[in-house]
Amino acid sequence: MFSFVVEARSGRSRAGRLVTPHGAVATPAFMPVGTAGAVKAAPWRDVGEAGAQLLLANTYHLMLRPGDELVAELGGLHGFTGWPGAWLTDSGGYQVMSLAALRTVDEEGVAFRSHLDGALHVLTPERSMQVQMNLGADLVMAFDECPPLPAPRDVVRAAAERTTRWAWRSRQAHRRADQWLFGIVQGGVDPELRERSAREIVALDFPGHAVGGLAVGEAKPDTMRVVAQMDGLLPEDKPRYLMGVGTPEDLLAAVGHGVDLFDCVLPTRNARNGQLFTSHGRLSIRNARHRRDPRPPDPACPCSTCARTSRAYLRHLHLAGEMTAAHLMTVHNLFFYLDTLRRLRQSILLGRFEEFRGETLRGLSAAAEPADS
Amino acid sequence: MFSFVVEARSGRSRAGRLVTPHGAVATPAFMPVGTAGAVKAAPWRDVGEAGAQLLLANTYHLMLRPGDELVAELGGLHGFTGWPGAWLTDSGGYQVMSLAALRTVDEEGVAFRSHLDGALHVLTPERSMQVQMNLGADLVMAFDECPPLPAPRDVVRAAAERTTRWAWRSRQAHRRADQWLFGIVQGGVDPELRERSAREIVALDFPGHAVGGLAVGEAKPDTMRVVAQMDGLLPEDKPRYLMGVGTPEDLLAAVGHGVDLFDCVLPTRNARNGQLFTSHGRLSIRNARHRRDPRPPDPACPCSTCARTSRAYLRHLHLAGEMTAAHLMTVHNLFFYLDTLRRLRQSILLGRFEEFRGETLRGLSAAAEPADS
Repeated sequence: MFSFVVEARSGRSRAGRLVTPHGAVATPAFMPVGTAGAVKAAPWRDVGEAGAQLLLANTYHLMLRPGDELVAELGGLHGFTGWPGAWLTDSGGYQVMSLAALRTVDEEGVAFRSHLDGALHVLTPERSMQVQMNLGADLVMAFDECPPLPAPRDVVRAAAERTTRWAWRSRQAHRRADQWLFGIVQGGVDPELRERSAREIVALDFPGHAVGGLAVGEAKPDTMRVVAQMDGLLPEDKPRYLMGVGTPEDLLAAVGHGVDLFDCVLPTRNARNGQLFTSHGRLSIRNARHRRDPRPPDPACPCSTCARTSRAYLRHLHLAGEMTAAHLMTVHNLFFYLDTLRRLRQSILLGRFEEFRGETLRGLSAAAEPADS
Repeated sequence: MFSFVVEARSGRSRAGRLVTPHGAVATPAFMPVGTAGAVKAAPWRDVGEAGAQLLLANTYHLMLRPGDELVAELGGLHGFTGWPGAWLTDSGGYQVMSLAALRTVDEEGVAFRSHLDGALHVLTPERSMQVQMNLGADLVMAFDECPPLPAPRDVVRAAAERTTRWAWRSRQAHRRADQWLFGIVQGGVDPELRERSAREIVALDFPGHAVGGLAVGEAKPDTMRVVAQMDGLLPEDKPRYLMGVGTPEDLLAAVGHGVDLFDCVLPTRNARNGQLFTSHGRLSIRNARHRRDPRPPDPACPCSTCARTSRAYLRHLHLAGEMTAAHLMTVHNLFFYLDTLRRLRQSILLGRFEEFRGETLRGLSAAAEPADS
């Protein structure tokens, strides 16, 4: 039902194949974020045409609305949403810390009030597993504690140690054979805490590992230093997921440290704000320079938006507040992310990852426009 | 380049074919509204798959943003928007009266301040023609004065008389052979004023006629009485367009009085508000009864939304504020309107319009739910 194989390597980068009950995922893979069970502004057909094979949904949001039991009753995330590919759910730990009101954390778990209606809820490792079993994703995450950075070393250490205990409890509570449960490594940007956390989590023998606690406020060089450190500590034969990262440049760097899976709101959120990722850098559609520009966002891009849509028209729709602007730009940004990883994977198969990364980074830094208006 | 033929009749209903430089339109036809050059929440592929052949854009909105000269520079509405079918623009008269601030009307035209930025603009018959020639739609409308109802008879008469003079000026000012200019009949719900307006507008020998000044506050029986009166006054061999009408029931009634073209914001606006049109009446997706309902909005509907989407999921997306909810419901409502007219046209070809109307009305009145929550 599940398998993961590394098919090729180029340097430290890996091209793999992760088989789930809802299809195979070619790795390195980017997961579009479908917080509430939908990728914002992108219907399934477009998400599929962009090449997505695995999506992320947020346990915190779905447990509050529409409720995980309702989702279970309607066939889990797959049946409820109709997305034909694979789903991954996060543990709820990160979002309960960043979104919920009046949260209190103790060894048992996190008590919090919903940001929607103020109702009191509790998330524990056992409850997170129950919710994620109800949601029914293919890949699920152990419940972790993710402190925002910077934080005192004591805080980071305590969170990492608790994350290990919660990982053990998560493993004990998880009982669906049609889900793969990943352990999450914490430890902030402290090498010693990271190493200890990685060793403890790996010892629990999860089928895959996530690197959490990054992209939460630390300096970017620290992020990649930790990712590189993880490369030496996580087993080679299991998938590695870098949570919440990041820009196209970040993905290129992290793949170079053996990361297989990514998720990030950047392509979808930025699209709604009018920012497009292109092979020649970022482009803000609000910029007055696009007012009469008949070219598509990225002339080199074969996506359906670039095949049919001028910058002038996109700019007009965006300024007029038309939802279609968000849709068209989301379709492009998702295609750009997924296509970049497809081509990157091909470069690994050809043993040319470093060349591909160099060429792609040069394109990305050739700013599509001097500055945003 | 243009032609209109009535291919079949059933009672007073007509099945026709309106050929434009951007494709043929099977009539009776419903035009989805694309105010700013886009159908809200529905990308072109979906609009095309719903079966739309002709869309309406609003002159008032486009002249203010992005500006008709910019649209002209980028290839007119066709080139600018990428919609491959036909476009119709209204005259701007109705919207300048209902949306603009501080408008003053005199024989020359209407001076007004933009609802966007307060800038001063003037619309006259000549300026409306210039803007519509710049926008480059296939079908364009004479500049008219449309008073909201109820209004004193003096006001309605003066507006109808001025509409005739403005129609003449519009005809004089219009100079694109690749556009068909329609005259607009006014006269409120007063039979004598309506008859006089119709005779004057018909005398100007436009290639098509629109019935304006309805759906602006009058009682519904008055609307259909005027539509029936128009049927006896407008030439049989030219297309007839009932502006701004209406519900599915209205369309069925008006086709029975020989109307060929319709536009209305109802299917798209109601979709964004969570109201679905179905073969068994209207359905409000917010209604708590849909919370765990695995059925599609309309089990009899072959649209892409009904093929894949449960009421429970749609309700969740709508309550969560996901744009995809507006998209999925817009796709369904457009399909419902366009498909109803396709089947209606078929019934005319088979000489069975009255039977079709009766069956369809019985379905529409079999409320899909007792009451909205």
